[in-house]
Amino acid sequence: MTTSSIRPGEIALANDPAQAAGDARLVFIGRVRTPWTSRKDAPKNPNEARSRGGTAHVELDAAFRPGLQGLEGFSHAIVLYWMHKARRDLLVQSPRQSGKTHGTFSLRSPVRPNPIALSVVRILKVDADAGRIDIDAIDCLDGTPLVDVKPYRPGIDAVPDAMTP
Amino acid sequence: MTTSSIRPGEIALANDPAQAAGDARLVFIGRVRTPWTSRKDAPKNPNEARSRGGTAHVELDAAFRPGLQGLEGFSHAIVLYWMHKARRDLLVQSPRQSGKTHGTFSLRSPVRPNPIALSVVRILKVDADAGRIDIDAIDCLDGTPLVDVKPYRPGIDAVPDAMTP
Repeated sequence: MTTSSIRPGEIALANDPAQAAGDARLVFIGRVRTPWTSRKDAPKNPNEARSRGGTAHVELDAAFRPGLQGLEGFSHAIVLYWMHKARRDLLVQSPRQSGKTHGTFSLRSPVRPNPIALSVVRILKVDADAGRIDIDAIDCLDGTPLVDVKPYRPGIDAVPDAMTP
Repeated sequence: MTTSSIRPGEIALANDPAQAAGDARLVFIGRVRTPWTSRKDAPKNPNEARSRGGTAHVELDAAFRPGLQGLEGFSHAIVLYWMHKARRDLLVQSPRQSGKTHGTFSLRSPVRPNPIALSVVRILKVDADAGRIDIDAIDCLDGTPLVDVKPYRPGIDAVPDAMTP
């Protein structure tokens, strides 16, 4: 990946995290199932996914399904997933539509040293036996590896008046 | 960790993720600095950390600091960190104060197959050259490994009317 092209103004790490031995290991606990099968076709953000419609669900591997017990009491969840197709070496990047450069940690781009993406989703139905959570929408590709599911707690997670540039 | 004790009603994975080869590798990009140095003393959640006061900051290793460019325009950030002292094999757990069992994915407990914790924090100051983000408060132990920093976008992250049991 270190040989990938960069746009003017972008800054890449000298040591590509994708090639590093790593400091910790993730296990994939399932997959995210969506209508989006190519990056070109995929929505650019969760709200675009929502407006384009199309159902989505999260699918847990059999061993992890007992962990879903109690999730049905929550209206929303935080889904963490691994953007397995994203390069990991860019620290300053120039998103296509922006025309400006931005630090990776000021973007929600999948391109980052640890390509873990996070989406807040509405839970439609939890089937713990089948390991399936039906959700309103999500913007990732079909088959994206699942890393974690957390209950959304508005008391600590919702800051409706947070400011953005 | 598979030999760790479990409480009545708890369910553990047969294969402890902490012993697995893993499906993906994380690089730690820095540390979280807090006043909390022992698990016994640490706050139980972000709101307790806030009410107990004490400053906190996020510290990025030198190589990753260019990625902070532009974060100063946001009032809040999402911090992802690695709960390196948590066991990873419990799928159903009985939190001390609860007296009931809960599926891991319906809890924010650090004990989970991939012990990545997530906190929404208020940004007080960003010093990109020093790789330092001063934040209002966070509930993890001093020195906790940092995995990612993302800008908080209320349009996709804030669901103030989300329901909990």
